[in-house]
Amino acid sequence: MAHREIKALTFDVFGTVVDWYTTILQEGRTWGVAKGITVDWAQFALDWRAGYAPAMARVRNGELPWLNIDALHRLILDELLARYAIPDLREAEKEQWNRVWHRLRPWPDAVTGLRRLKTRYIIATLSNGNVALLTNMAKHSDLPWDLILSAELFHHYKPDPEVYQGAAALLGLEPQDVLMVAAHQGDLRAAQAVGMKTAFVPRPLESGPDNVPDLTFEPTFDFVARDFGELANQLGT
Amino acid sequence: MAHREIKALTFDVFGTVVDWYTTILQEGRTWGVAKGITVDWAQFALDWRAGYAPAMARVRNGELPWLNIDALHRLILDELLARYAIPDLREAEKEQWNRVWHRLRPWPDAVTGLRRLKTRYIIATLSNGNVALLTNMAKHSDLPWDLILSAELFHHYKPDPEVYQGAAALLGLEPQDVLMVAAHQGDLRAAQAVGMKTAFVPRPLESGPDNVPDLTFEPTFDFVARDFGELANQLGT
Repeated sequence: MAHREIKALTFDVFGTVVDWYTTILQEGRTWGVAKGITVDWAQFALDWRAGYAPAMARVRNGELPWLNIDALHRLILDELLARYAIPDLREAEKEQWNRVWHRLRPWPDAVTGLRRLKTRYIIATLSNGNVALLTNMAKHSDLPWDLILSAELFHHYKPDPEVYQGAAALLGLEPQDVLMVAAHQGDLRAAQAVGMKTAFVPRPLESGPDNVPDLTFEPTFDFVARDFGELANQLGT
Repeated sequence: MAHREIKALTFDVFGTVVDWYTTILQEGRTWGVAKGITVDWAQFALDWRAGYAPAMARVRNGELPWLNIDALHRLILDELLARYAIPDLREAEKEQWNRVWHRLRPWPDAVTGLRRLKTRYIIATLSNGNVALLTNMAKHSDLPWDLILSAELFHHYKPDPEVYQGAAALLGLEPQDVLMVAAHQGDLRAAQAVGMKTAFVPRPLESGPDNVPDLTFEPTFDFVARDFGELANQLGT
């Protein structure tokens, strides 16, 4: 069976492990009430996330130097604060807002599923999030990673092949011994292209209940699971 | 108090967290009996470890390209197998031997102390050992790291300043918010030189009972503790 060869699982994080949409929405609502500011926080969360791929593209094409995700999130945040006409935040408040990405809460199945998977496999992040962000998130939300792997270590963003190849090399493993777990098929296809195994865990509510994506998938993934508990079942843990 | 500012602890590993001398000695004895080979395994362990600093120096001075510690340990092992006249090992046996460094066992206080420290601080390796070695060791010996930081990420070996500066940068912290923990004063002095705080945890038996080093230390370290339990006491965990 394929999974007998798998030594390590690498996880996409934003959307796959943690629920950025609900966390940002809820923090926004609470903060808005306290400050007397009315904003469509659901749209604010979606817009912040929507700025992420274009910001990475500006790094990839050389328009920006290497900047980590904290820095890219901050560039987008500064635009959003202007667009949403949120006035006069102190620098410390902007930084506190920017670090909401360090406080994202896991999907309900994530921590229990990861604990099960950790008993048999090495479990690592493999996220475009920077190392500090992923480390602080793990402390905040009790995510039991064995190690933190990040695009930041390779100065390339997923889906560049250097990220997947670099992760396997640091783990001392061949790509086929590593299972990439993600809710995003593009991430999995890029992992497949370098020889990694793949597990698709769709998260239909990633962008909120009004934005359920097309979850049709190609039958090329090694595993498809509804959540991390089902993945743990399939992987024999 | 100084420790109120500390956010993360970074640990030297070989000798500080794990007991390389006893692990190699015991594995050697067991293996030697099974194979009918008589070797002074205590001296073998000391010689293997003694080859480590010169091998890193050859990388540092450019005589060798970047090689990780698995590769350097293997260069030294191949010399030792010849010197000790250990004949005709298969490649798989040599690799199994080389990976004894992935199986090093912790000092008796280490796991409990790390668990206490982890409740309040980020705890990370900061070792010349490569990422795979440190990851496999943590799985083998139940070391509860939040993340694995390694000289391998920076292509510099301690005590080069790039390692300490690089670790603080990845953690998103100023050096003074990071506490370097080590049994080796040279490691701590190099951490101090970039502004990190320091904790000296002497391990008098690191090189065996016949090689207790001079443990006199300069009064410049922020903390001095007999073991990780006492360090946890001092750090309020």
